[in-house]
Amino acid sequence: MSGDRKMRLGAFLMAGGHHIAAWRHPLAHAQAGVDIDHFVALARIAERGKFDMIFVEDAAAIRERNSDMASQAARSTAFEPLSLLAALAVNTSHIGLVATASTTYNEPYGLARSFASLDQLSGGRAGWNLVTSASELEAENFASSGLRPHSERYERAEEFADAALAIWDGVEDGAYLPPGGADFTDRAKLHPVHHRGKHFAVEGLLESPCSPQGRPIMVQAGASDVGKELAARTADVVFAASQTIDEAKAYYSDVKARLAKYGRQIDDIKIMPGISPIVGATEAEAKAKYRALQELIPDAVGVALLASYLSIQDLSSYPLDGPLPDMPETNLIQSRQQLIIDLGRRENLSIRELARHFAGARGHWQVAGTPAQIADAMEERFSAGAADGFNVMAPIFPSGLEDFVTLVVPELRRRGLFREAYEGRTLRQNLGVGVPAKR
Amino acid sequence: MSGDRKMRLGAFLMAGGHHIAAWRHPLAHAQAGVDIDHFVALARIAERGKFDMIFVEDAAAIRERNSDMASQAARSTAFEPLSLLAALAVNTSHIGLVATASTTYNEPYGLARSFASLDQLSGGRAGWNLVTSASELEAENFASSGLRPHSERYERAEEFADAALAIWDGVEDGAYLPPGGADFTDRAKLHPVHHRGKHFAVEGLLESPCSPQGRPIMVQAGASDVGKELAARTADVVFAASQTIDEAKAYYSDVKARLAKYGRQIDDIKIMPGISPIVGATEAEAKAKYRALQELIPDAVGVALLASYLSIQDLSSYPLDGPLPDMPETNLIQSRQQLIIDLGRRENLSIRELARHFAGARGHWQVAGTPAQIADAMEERFSAGAADGFNVMAPIFPSGLEDFVTLVVPELRRRGLFREAYEGRTLRQNLGVGVPAKR
Ligand SMILES: Cc1cc2nc3c(=O)[nH]c(=O)nc-3n(C[C@H](O)[C@H](O)[C@H](O)COP(=O)(O)O)c2cc1C
Ligand SMILES: Cc1cc2nc3c(=O)[nH]c(=O)nc-3n(C[C@H](O)[C@H](O)[C@H](O)COP(=O)(O)O)c2cc1C
Repeated sequence: MSGDRKMRLGAFLMAGGHHIAAWRHPLAHAQAGVDIDHFVALARIAERGKFDMIFVEDAAAIRERNSDMASQAARSTAFEPLSLLAALAVNTSHIGLVATASTTYNEPYGLARSFASLDQLSGGRAGWNLVTSASELEAENFASSGLRPHSERYERAEEFADAALAIWDGVEDGAYLPPGGADFTDRAKLHPVHHRGKHFAVEGLLESPCSPQGRPIMVQAGASDVGKELAARTADVVFAASQTIDEAKAYYSDVKARLAKYGRQIDDIKIMPGISPIVGATEAEAKAKYRALQELIPDAVGVALLASYLSIQDLSSYPLDGPLPDMPETNLIQSRQQLIIDLGRRENLSIRELARHFAGARGHWQVAGTPAQIADAMEERFSAGAADGFNVMAPIFPSGLEDFVTLVVPELRRRGLFREAYEGRTLRQNLGVGVPAKR
Repeated sequence: MSGDRKMRLGAFLMAGGHHIAAWRHPLAHAQAGVDIDHFVALARIAERGKFDMIFVEDAAAIRERNSDMASQAARSTAFEPLSLLAALAVNTSHIGLVATASTTYNEPYGLARSFASLDQLSGGRAGWNLVTSASELEAENFASSGLRPHSERYERAEEFADAALAIWDGVEDGAYLPPGGADFTDRAKLHPVHHRGKHFAVEGLLESPCSPQGRPIMVQAGASDVGKELAARTADVVFAASQTIDEAKAYYSDVKARLAKYGRQIDDIKIMPGISPIVGATEAEAKAKYRALQELIPDAVGVALLASYLSIQDLSSYPLDGPLPDMPETNLIQSRQQLIIDLGRRENLSIRELARHFAGARGHWQVAGTPAQIADAMEERFSAGAADGFNVMAPIFPSGLEDFVTLVVPELRRRGLFREAYEGRTLRQNLGVGVPAKR
């Protein structure tokens, strides 16, 4: 790795915070999920920290079937991501704006157009986190036939991505002429789409000039084989969830190894696993902050989530303060499950303790410590071929993000790992990924 | 009509201006359609004028098949309306934000969610102009089977509107609880949708609190019988295009007469026809401004548009400076066509002159004159049962809107026809329409 290779940083924004119990914290902000002033403040903190991007997740559904049920997602209200980021675009100047949107419940022309609009609004700072929407609750809002199978969703996603890229590439730079002349467009620079596939037909062009960054940034977070393949073919940025450095390295080299067959270079994709940092002036302070958050996790939520990570139906019949029961060693037991079992045995943790451990950051990597300790942990993964950067999931807003920007970012800079100033005005320039060849 | 009945005013915003040749004007602004600063400036002018709302049209397609073809729409680049209005929401404080969106190329859950988001972003100022998208060019971007028939589009629109209203009504005021407690929602205030119709299935709820205005405002501009019926059943505001006061009165009483059968009152719908005002300090100045704009209309554009208003294939084989040819008196000849023919005969106008007359404001009512003359014309229609207000289509931006706000609005105020200050913070409060009974 070259000496001046820099880390990429994204800020995962959501309502009260990324921690599963953030909504219960005494500092939590009422209905933060639909408070635009709250989000403007967060975006500005991240921009002050010179983050590459802010990121907004999405699900076109309420996250839980009923309020008694333990939910995987933190409880929060939420804006629709594209309108939220449009409002943030005019309140920021350099930071990238990445919205999640589904290929299963949208059409390529409509969605490509919305991202082109966000890109114009922001002067070239838009990114699209492409997801196929795995939840039953979303399916129920769009069709009576239920969730489509994984393979069908990805088949549609592949075609969707191709159509969207063709739509963005349809209008070359300079295609719309300055006013005053006889012509409005330079027809040689317009390339209508003519896409006819199994799922979509698109014939037209966008009523929008070429993206200020050549094309919006494509983001993906696929964990399945077909998901990683789509990422390798089309993504500029890949998000991931890895607890251990070994998991992270395996994921990293797996995705990077897929690039060559699409004629792409190792550096064409930036892999950014999540990190949930809990920052303290001292280690003891950080651990105390962490404990205070963890204690807010309702037992029912933690235990249900632990059961789902273990791919078992239910844990509620076992004593909370006892150990995990013995589990049948089926082929369902994947590496994640084995990790949990091993940790429980090694550190002699109760079900309640294990549940809190994994539920807090919803499966993401958590680090509680001093700024130097957190920078150490990030540097280790960055240098070991486990990450090109990180998606920072502050456990609670705004303080968790503020702490990271004020305390950890300067530490990363001192080590030469992170930028002092934005390199450019577009997200693509700041990420340092080129514009892919157009069709 | 009561003495303190006030006019409603909307500002129709689009790129360089509403005049069909605005893009060719020397004052036109390069790529105004995707310049957010330009739109922020326009929204603020309208808000300074205490307009009820700004309005953004939409078509999910480029407006012309190729750049040689004369197009009905002015040539312009454009933002996607919902993202544009999200960005304007955070740059304004009182003015309503009405975006056009199609029931043919969207799904109710996704669209209802986006408008709910705009409503939260703006503190209750969102409105949805429901259209069924009549253009072939849009159909080509969404399906290979072409434009769906009018009746099928409206059948879908009826079901779409019902589903959207149910989604908005699913979350009662106060359903999301303040943080800190054990519960995130008050389940008694959540009413999941359970919509299963011919076109859509929706089961869920929005992850968004109740609209600050009870419900986003519904706008419609249907001209067909079924379009007017849908408006009578669901709309709070109706846009219209009427050249003469008689046309306007007929449309007005037609729509109002349909309200009773849905248990609605005459005042539950505000009917706002378009007006394209060309304001001058003197009548001569206004006429000169008007002529300068009209002369920018390329003959090919004007003549093609005139042919389309006359529902005939082509006029280009006739001499431009000669009269309209005799037209067969078929049952295709509707009132609009007859009006054009009569005007041509009465005022002895050539094809070129007629073309410019109708093309300029794309079929809307144009008034060129002093502030008092324009106020006279508006007052006449407002008092005669032809309008509850007007959708102001400034021919060119920003000057056309600035002129209206600076010169005509004070004149309307002097006559007691228009507000001095906003009555409330939400669009619904300012329009003076109540929240319809919820399901
Ligand atoms: C950081 C991160 C953010 C994600 N955000 C979303 C999201 O907002 N919406 C969603 O449906 N899935 C989201 N996912 C899930 C993934 O995009 C993907 O659907 C999941 O990893 C399953 O991958 P697979 O379908 O390829 O197996 C996210 C994953 C990660 C790691
Ligand atoms: C002021 C005004 C604005 C309109 N804006 C749009 C628009 O943005 N997009 C669109 O597809 N139709 C638009 N329309 C067209 C109408 O909504 C409607 O589709 C048209 O009048 C045909 O009505 P019908 O389908 O009921 O016959 C507009 C009409 C008016 C009067």
